[in-house]
Amino acid sequence: MGLVTCDVTVSVDGFVAGPDQTLEQPLARGGETLHRWQFEQSDVNASELAGILDAGAYIMGRNMFGPVRGGWPEDRRGWWGPNPPYHAPVFVLTHHARGPVEMDGGTTFSFIEAGIGEALARARSAAGARNVAVAGGASTINQYLAAGLIDELRLHIAPVLLGSGERLFGDVEPPLWLMPIAARATDSSHTLPTG
Amino acid sequence: MGLVTCDVTVSVDGFVAGPDQTLEQPLARGGETLHRWQFEQSDVNASELAGILDAGAYIMGRNMFGPVRGGWPEDRRGWWGPNPPYHAPVFVLTHHARGPVEMDGGTTFSFIEAGIGEALARARSAAGARNVAVAGGASTINQYLAAGLIDELRLHIAPVLLGSGERLFGDVEPPLWLMPIAARATDSSHTLPTG
Repeated sequence: MGLVTCDVTVSVDGFVAGPDQTLEQPLARGGETLHRWQFEQSDVNASELAGILDAGAYIMGRNMFGPVRGGWPEDRRGWWGPNPPYHAPVFVLTHHARGPVEMDGGTTFSFIEAGIGEALARARSAAGARNVAVAGGASTINQYLAAGLIDELRLHIAPVLLGSGERLFGDVEPPLWLMPIAARATDSSHTLPTG
Repeated sequence: MGLVTCDVTVSVDGFVAGPDQTLEQPLARGGETLHRWQFEQSDVNASELAGILDAGAYIMGRNMFGPVRGGWPEDRRGWWGPNPPYHAPVFVLTHHARGPVEMDGGTTFSFIEAGIGEALARARSAAGARNVAVAGGASTINQYLAAGLIDELRLHIAPVLLGSGERLFGDVEPPLWLMPIAARATDSSHTLPTG
């Protein structure tokens, strides 16, 4: 059985996304600066990206799939276009039933109403011997952290101050056991103001 | 003229100290686990410690010097015993006048009522060509960050979850320019639960 992993990029002040998420700005105000490292070419960045997309199945919250509330509009198929980067089963936590949505390239979105435990069981089953990745957003990651269900948390700390937004570790209370595995720095020296 | 540096150890959820500071627990509940790395022998840790104590003058808030409120009791001489580790002038921000306190080993505590700008001017003058270090706590560091007065912020991120306490970057609003200089990991693999 694989590990349950979680790659998450946080601002230096601990936010996974900025405030005021909209359809046009899924990472909210300033949030896209968090992920700029993914578009900068370096060996470390390429290796980190490969690690993020190496899982056999993914879990995400409904807010990561789409910010709509209530029932699902049939045309809501995520943020990623017709061929999402997952190429694997993706389990979306929701309170609203919806049948699976098959995308190009092997990504299938399945909608789970029975909570984080059921989503993890389904993802483990789909992943087989490979890892299951908790993809986000903050609320979903925090629920899995609080439940002690994440084996390997990979924090990508961006040199960006957001000031407000969705906080990683929000509502996660001690004790939480953490053991350092490894740390490394990108060779990026880019900087931009935020806000 | 030297740099204005700030070494600060934060929990993985962004706290500089835990909740409920007391005279017996100056770093508050769980806070001492943050600083365990300083007592673990490794080349990286030794080098980091040397960097922290390399300044020509230091600035700290009154809460770091002592949690007392109101006027100063004459016997309040910091947390560090008769020979503090600074061996240099230390400027303590306060609203209550007090004459300088000379300690063994070259540390002198001077009490500054005129705010962070005056404290920095005094520290720069005392440090000459050497660096000035903003030693803490969170409120003092946050004031200097918000004012854009810190040249080099050295974040030491500990694998500890505190859940609450004194937050680094609290009240610091974007935009804040940050440029990565370097990052490295200790070889520590110790872990302890907190809370």
